[in-house]
Amino acid sequence: MTTNSLHAFDQALQLRADAPGQYQGESPKPYWNMVGPFGGITAATLLQAVLQHPDRLGDPLALTVNYGGGLVAGSFQIQAVPVRTNRSTQHWTLSILQSGPDGAPVVTTTGTAVTALRRETWSAGDALAPQVPKPADLQAIPPAFEVEWLRRYEMRPVTGVIPQVWDGSGDHSLSQLWMRDAPPRALDFCSLAAMADIFFPRVWLRRARQVPAGTVSITVYFHASQADLAATGDGYLLGQARGQEFRNGFFDHSAQLWNEAGTVLATSHQIVYYKE
Amino acid sequence: MTTNSLHAFDQALQLRADAPGQYQGESPKPYWNMVGPFGGITAATLLQAVLQHPDRLGDPLALTVNYGGGLVAGSFQIQAVPVRTNRSTQHWTLSILQSGPDGAPVVTTTGTAVTALRRETWSAGDALAPQVPKPADLQAIPPAFEVEWLRRYEMRPVTGVIPQVWDGSGDHSLSQLWMRDAPPRALDFCSLAAMADIFFPRVWLRRARQVPAGTVSITVYFHASQADLAATGDGYLLGQARGQEFRNGFFDHSAQLWNEAGTVLATSHQIVYYKE
Repeated sequence: MTTNSLHAFDQALQLRADAPGQYQGESPKPYWNMVGPFGGITAATLLQAVLQHPDRLGDPLALTVNYGGGLVAGSFQIQAVPVRTNRSTQHWTLSILQSGPDGAPVVTTTGTAVTALRRETWSAGDALAPQVPKPADLQAIPPAFEVEWLRRYEMRPVTGVIPQVWDGSGDHSLSQLWMRDAPPRALDFCSLAAMADIFFPRVWLRRARQVPAGTVSITVYFHASQADLAATGDGYLLGQARGQEFRNGFFDHSAQLWNEAGTVLATSHQIVYYKE
Repeated sequence: MTTNSLHAFDQALQLRADAPGQYQGESPKPYWNMVGPFGGITAATLLQAVLQHPDRLGDPLALTVNYGGGLVAGSFQIQAVPVRTNRSTQHWTLSILQSGPDGAPVVTTTGTAVTALRRETWSAGDALAPQVPKPADLQAIPPAFEVEWLRRYEMRPVTGVIPQVWDGSGDHSLSQLWMRDAPPRALDFCSLAAMADIFFPRVWLRRARQVPAGTVSITVYFHASQADLAATGDGYLLGQARGQEFRNGFFDHSAQLWNEAGTVLATSHQIVYYKE
């Protein structure tokens, strides 16, 4: 599936640089969630700001994004500042601002990133991909609920889909699914960051109850090199997420993302607000 | 074991507020690692700055600390800014600065934090404490190598101690240990943050090779309430850490900390540089 126009993901990530590290962007309607953009596209956009900075050193290693308040429709400003550059690592502070009700800028999102030059060393993968059916042997599912961003991904679940019946019968929070952009698009660091946030709130599965929930903070560790991304191309990623602790309004989950060859491309964690 | 003077941990965390969110502190010699303070004490100090801020809302929920460069001996400055305050969450940006070689301030450390007001909700703990011997049935070990900060903790390992022989024979990276401050000290959010960084580099265990290594970024999610901390008192915490992916100079690990009653107090993740 190809198209001559810009992919929705690339369109969403278009930034206009006003000065090094100062960007303007537009909240992307095609990635709209219930009350603002999908958190993953916001994380990807912050990473895009880092990658476009003329002083950037190396590739993404770590990204933390804190969702202070949802973005609203319209334009936003990004600040991406390399506050410390070492020989092989570079440390970034990130923020998104939008005009508040009175026109004054309001911080919606904060974050930090680390980029790094990597060299070949002894390596070992201890987070092995689970043995699951191949993407072609699984059905792609329609969007589980009516929001735009779900149409931007092809999802072929292995296990742990959104409950069909909200009867409080849940007893675990493990989901595994194959995923890729829809239409397909060659994987890069930004789309990897976005996909790290693709998992619906673990509390929905754990409780079989669809309570209000939203990510407060996500961290992504990038293990992929440019060569790993190129080898993945527009193939599927296997994502796995599982909640750890659900307590008094917040839970955390751990996630891993592998390509079809079984290489870990990223690991991720997030802490999520939930109600009741 | 009691003492009339201030505990070394409290001494290390003493900050002088110059203005709201602007603090001065001193790199703590009793928590010295090989070339600078133990990363856990630096994380705890940043959290302390948040907790001392007059505008703080709620208790710690998430903390990310990025180690841009080691602190050196002498004084440092902390900036802790509540950039966004919602009804029940507050978002913080954090940094530590020290005078560089030419006297100009240099950023050594960046970070973000989220504090939150929590209310009672449905809860479930899916990260169960492993079945292990009680602290009293295990030996406290002497510091595994000659650095000051290891003397500030009592450690009673269950499994996965630092290898005695560096012969390249490692085949896993799981460590479990009981730990508490030495001398004992009632647990608080800051000491919990510090203990989340107590694990020696997983790559040493995985390879049975003591290559140079250092944390680049750590994230701690706090599940404990003030009541959980009070119930823990100066008892032991069970810490568990395991590496996920070791690749081309960086690995990540996941960690959990329980109290003796089996309550998860915090979960944590970090990405760590290693050589060769």
